[in-house]
Amino acid sequence: MTYFIFCIHNHQPAGNFPEVIEAAYESSYGPFLKAISKHPSIKLTIHTSGFLLDWIVENRPEYIELLKSMVERGQAEVMGGGYYEPILQVIPQADRLNQITMMSDKLEEVFGFRPRGIWLAERVWEPELPTTLKKAGMEYILVDDYHFIKSGLTREELGGYYVTEDQGNVIKVFPGSEALRYLIPFKPVDALEAHLRGLKGFLKRGDAAIYGDDGEKFGVWPGTAKWVFDEGWLEGFFAWMEKNLHWLKPVKMGEYIESAGPVGRVYLPATSYMEMGEWSLPATASREYGELVEEARTWERGEEVRRFFQGGTWRNFFSKYPEANWMHKRMLLASQSLRERAEGRQWDEGLADAERHLFKSQCNDAYWHGVFGGLYLPHLRTEVYRNLIEAEKLASIEQAHSEGPSITVIDMDADGFDEVIIRNRELNLFVSPDNGGSLVELDFKPRAVNLSNTLSRWFEGYHHKLEKKGKTEGDEGAEGTRSIHDVVLVKEEGLERYLKYDTARRVSLVDRFLSSDVTLDSIYCNKYNDLGDFSNNRYNADVRGASLVLSREGEVRGGRVSIAKEIIPGAHNSFKVNYRMKNLSSRAGACRFAVEMNFILPCCDGPACLYQMTPPVADIGLGSRGEVSGVEKVGLIDTYTGVGLSIASGPPATLWRFPVHTVSLSEGGFEKIYQGACLTFLYPISLDTGGEEFEVSFDLLAEEIT
Amino acid sequence: MTYFIFCIHNHQPAGNFPEVIEAAYESSYGPFLKAISKHPSIKLTIHTSGFLLDWIVENRPEYIELLKSMVERGQAEVMGGGYYEPILQVIPQADRLNQITMMSDKLEEVFGFRPRGIWLAERVWEPELPTTLKKAGMEYILVDDYHFIKSGLTREELGGYYVTEDQGNVIKVFPGSEALRYLIPFKPVDALEAHLRGLKGFLKRGDAAIYGDDGEKFGVWPGTAKWVFDEGWLEGFFAWMEKNLHWLKPVKMGEYIESAGPVGRVYLPATSYMEMGEWSLPATASREYGELVEEARTWERGEEVRRFFQGGTWRNFFSKYPEANWMHKRMLLASQSLRERAEGRQWDEGLADAERHLFKSQCNDAYWHGVFGGLYLPHLRTEVYRNLIEAEKLASIEQAHSEGPSITVIDMDADGFDEVIIRNRELNLFVSPDNGGSLVELDFKPRAVNLSNTLSRWFEGYHHKLEKKGKTEGDEGAEGTRSIHDVVLVKEEGLERYLKYDTARRVSLVDRFLSSDVTLDSIYCNKYNDLGDFSNNRYNADVRGASLVLSREGEVRGGRVSIAKEIIPGAHNSFKVNYRMKNLSSRAGACRFAVEMNFILPCCDGPACLYQMTPPVADIGLGSRGEVSGVEKVGLIDTYTGVGLSIASGPPATLWRFPVHTVSLSEGGFEKIYQGACLTFLYPISLDTGGEEFEVSFDLLAEEIT
Repeated sequence: MTYFIFCIHNHQPAGNFPEVIEAAYESSYGPFLKAISKHPSIKLTIHTSGFLLDWIVENRPEYIELLKSMVERGQAEVMGGGYYEPILQVIPQADRLNQITMMSDKLEEVFGFRPRGIWLAERVWEPELPTTLKKAGMEYILVDDYHFIKSGLTREELGGYYVTEDQGNVIKVFPGSEALRYLIPFKPVDALEAHLRGLKGFLKRGDAAIYGDDGEKFGVWPGTAKWVFDEGWLEGFFAWMEKNLHWLKPVKMGEYIESAGPVGRVYLPATSYMEMGEWSLPATASREYGELVEEARTWERGEEVRRFFQGGTWRNFFSKYPEANWMHKRMLLASQSLRERAEGRQWDEGLADAERHLFKSQCNDAYWHGVFGGLYLPHLRTEVYRNLIEAEKLASIEQAHSEGPSITVIDMDADGFDEVIIRNRELNLFVSPDNGGSLVELDFKPRAVNLSNTLSRWFEGYHHKLEKKGKTEGDEGAEGTRSIHDVVLVKEEGLERYLKYDTARRVSLVDRFLSSDVTLDSIYCNKYNDLGDFSNNRYNADVRGASLVLSREGEVRGGRVSIAKEIIPGAHNSFKVNYRMKNLSSRAGACRFAVEMNFILPCCDGPACLYQMTPPVADIGLGSRGEVSGVEKVGLIDTYTGVGLSIASGPPATLWRFPVHTVSLSEGGFEKIYQGACLTFLYPISLDTGGEEFEVSFDLLAEEIT
Repeated sequence: MTYFIFCIHNHQPAGNFPEVIEAAYESSYGPFLKAISKHPSIKLTIHTSGFLLDWIVENRPEYIELLKSMVERGQAEVMGGGYYEPILQVIPQADRLNQITMMSDKLEEVFGFRPRGIWLAERVWEPELPTTLKKAGMEYILVDDYHFIKSGLTREELGGYYVTEDQGNVIKVFPGSEALRYLIPFKPVDALEAHLRGLKGFLKRGDAAIYGDDGEKFGVWPGTAKWVFDEGWLEGFFAWMEKNLHWLKPVKMGEYIESAGPVGRVYLPATSYMEMGEWSLPATASREYGELVEEARTWERGEEVRRFFQGGTWRNFFSKYPEANWMHKRMLLASQSLRERAEGRQWDEGLADAERHLFKSQCNDAYWHGVFGGLYLPHLRTEVYRNLIEAEKLASIEQAHSEGPSITVIDMDADGFDEVIIRNRELNLFVSPDNGGSLVELDFKPRAVNLSNTLSRWFEGYHHKLEKKGKTEGDEGAEGTRSIHDVVLVKEEGLERYLKYDTARRVSLVDRFLSSDVTLDSIYCNKYNDLGDFSNNRYNADVRGASLVLSREGEVRGGRVSIAKEIIPGAHNSFKVNYRMKNLSSRAGACRFAVEMNFILPCCDGPACLYQMTPPVADIGLGSRGEVSGVEKVGLIDTYTGVGLSIASGPPATLWRFPVHTVSLSEGGFEKIYQGACLTFLYPISLDTGGEEFEVSFDLLAEEIT
């Protein structure tokens, strides 16, 4: 007898649009469950992540009823997990346990059973995980066979679960088959049958065929709804299963560990599924690795070689994308604040609410990027910041900033250099002295939004595919439906034109000295020469009361210049930045002093967002590029969500503006995404005379608008 | 300016023979330090693991004085670490912190400085390590460049340290150069010079050449004493360094992190140095991987491919060698017992002593095997058990087993199945019901020795090299001295004859049914047929007071047989095993019931160990193979350490004995090692008549002998 484990994971990221979730439900989750419920012999182990589960409970109670009846009659087993699908190993230990427990409690409440195993978000395994899982009362987990093969095992040895442990904490771990992941539901049932029949002689150790993958492959992924439902793949699969029960027996995972012993003992490396290894590598390495893995398929000894290939690990995303690192460390800060506030205080509704927001902010999707948008999607990042700012607000209800502005110095982003956090009633400013004395995060607390939530235009290892795309388009669906990994699609033509790359993270209060031949276009293309050495270099930080003075002496065109910029928070929703420059030599000549700022208003790309200039000019959208001179004040107005940010400049400035567009992959193909507005304030200065001083000041104010 | 980091790690495993340590000191540690001390511009960062440090403090105080003066005048920096060089991630969190702190305290006491960085034992990195290191007050660590390359970085980017973190805990991590590890001290200084000069144009990020490796390569490894000292490599190297200070500046690691910023942010996978990846894989995979890595050197695109190769992780050794797993989990049990005993009790001398023993038992060497003996060396394993049994004895002083025998049921070895631990005043018995109801560990507490500490004859991926060795012998020392990795040497001829392989771990009370054509030789070669299905299969365990009844109904040659074996501990230093078999059918026919036992007397291979038979026969060494019939009692006598174990059999048995010899690699070449005595007690039985019963009993007694 061969056993068949059918494990499905349904997930929607916190912050995804309700209409997207509804569409996914209608095209996939709902029809899938309905279909399988009619075939009671086909046992199912199913995981639904918390944000989606909550949506279903609220909006589609009939799904819950159906699943509950399947659980009760023994057809289905529900799996647990971290409630909002965090990468467990990168969130604090207390949060890991509480998120898993929150999910177990919810499943018990909804289905009457506590789960015995968890779905591991993105199958990101690390060696210490068993201790967390054991503490959370879990018995089993599923990862990919890839993990096991990287421990030196062969596919023939993977017909069952293994035991593993950390510190003696034992967990049973199932190897989900990569081959089945590419067969189900993408290939005709015949091909699946051939594979499964082949296992009988093939498996030297164990007797189970183990499938575990995303439920979205049944209807949400492009082309799959037609193939899986309309063209009958799923019914065909179920019918075939029912005809073959005499040798292929579907079992739930919890059932299987009761009846079968472990195949052996294993220790898995820190890894995830195969594709994640490619995505998490630095861009160039990622491309080289991806191409090598593909090429090796054609080598005579390709399989031997591929067996020992490994890409990067998930945490690499924090090195690959500084924005992901910042967001992650920002989340750690919020978690730490919450735990500190909770100490020696009664756990109450407010703290529970705060914790729930914190957990939502830990949802993995926004922190990385592979074949889905992930980190590139502003609405996901916005949701992370919204939740962590809300968590902070709720946790510190009793300690509102009525005392006025405060300052904290801490290495927030874990790079070995301190950041300075300035808080007033409605704003949080995160300033990085070592990174050019820049403003990295500007939170507007009444709307719980980080206005600095811009993503830079990073080079991606897959960008070259945009050039090759013509060749592969159009041959879709030859045999079965094609896996998302093979598809090269674009959402609009001409995306190549947007492939401009940044060399540093897009932040604000970036100080440069530009010669007269630098144009807005050269700034946009990031092809120009900075005459100074201030941007990205270290400023001294001097805290004076609630104000911060950032200072640096540097070089401009061979001469010496000092800059002191003082950041002075207002009491409520504003702050002032006073620049004082001094020319220390007399060789610099004429040039322009330029201050760059990057701001994004929440999740919006289009008509809801406008510039408002003083003196007034005709309305211009945030998506436009251009120059306005004599600007005394510029407002960035988001009429959709109702947030405005205004920046007054003294003296009036020449203002260059352009929208920051990234080009990235999503399941629907290549797309460009608006990541914010880049503003450069320009001031002509002469640095001929040593000792001369020059001043610029900004007043920034954020507010709710109606 | 290019900086040169020269980091040396000196280590001897706990339990190594004093004469071996002394020889290593005289041929390496002493001369090396003396030599470098005469070149004050050559800065050194040096680590000495605790067991060796203690030996030096005790036996060579002049070394300490010299190193202290080097520290004081700024030439040397001492590094910390886990005191007894444990693999940090596999020992309990409290032990990690306490071992590192114990070392920091010691260094402060001896040298007047607390260390700021640690040497990472075997460079076994795991992603959560920074949290441990930060808690222990550490700032930096050194691993191999290999770790970084597996994160997708290139060698050109590795000219300095990176920051990494876990949970926001930042650590600075240096990439030690693999190229330098193979140059220093194995190649002529010219080759080293060419490499270092080449770095100047090569390093795109950073300005440091980073060397970190074992000090034993300077004089302890075969051939190196002659090359490094007698033939002048080391003096030549120092002289060259002194001539090149204008562009190559030696710095201590702590000095370097003060002056240079990080090159970037990195997240390292769970890995160690390149070679460990090969060693830790299962034997066949290990061979295939090793050969592929070598072969790829000759491929046109070999470097591209090798860049993404990865072998296994260190924890794999627990899967590869069940004995390593058992020893590790046994250590976790001792640690847990110690922490439990310490709770709610004043920390005192006894507990401190117990903790020190526990920490010694965590010394990594005995838990794994690569190019050194490691796990294969009985004296290292013996030392582990000695220390953990001593720790348990010291920790439970106030709770001596005066109340008589006790029984505990616990999944000690973390395989998902319970073991049963029976303790009386002088013995600990660890019984594994699921593994054939066997006796896995027998501790004789007065001498703190595990008499079951036998290693099985496992297949190793390098065994095939024994056949090829003729070809490579003799061409040593052509250019420079050869690295230990290239050498195929044997300590005696004809080792191939000892390559017999076990399929299961060598334990005791293993129950078999053998036909008359099975011989001692077929047992020795592990080529025979067991008529029954009892060995390695699951027995039921039934605790009755302090006794344990293990029972199983199984098959013998198509018929059904039940076995019940009762283990009854005596009050002091003995226990009894009563077998009761019942033939449940009438088809089994005549055969022999065989009970296998494997015992090792501590660390001895030779004349000190004897068999003593009753009725008496001429003295026979434990190294001999043969048969004696009518044995009423057999004694295993270790006159060297003074421990005796006697096994009385009722009825008298035919006794087969052979020595278990493994064949393994050490730095001196292939060697065979005595791992214990295999004893098989044979009883003719007829199982023709259904319902017939048959009984066998053993009395085992361990004692100190004079």
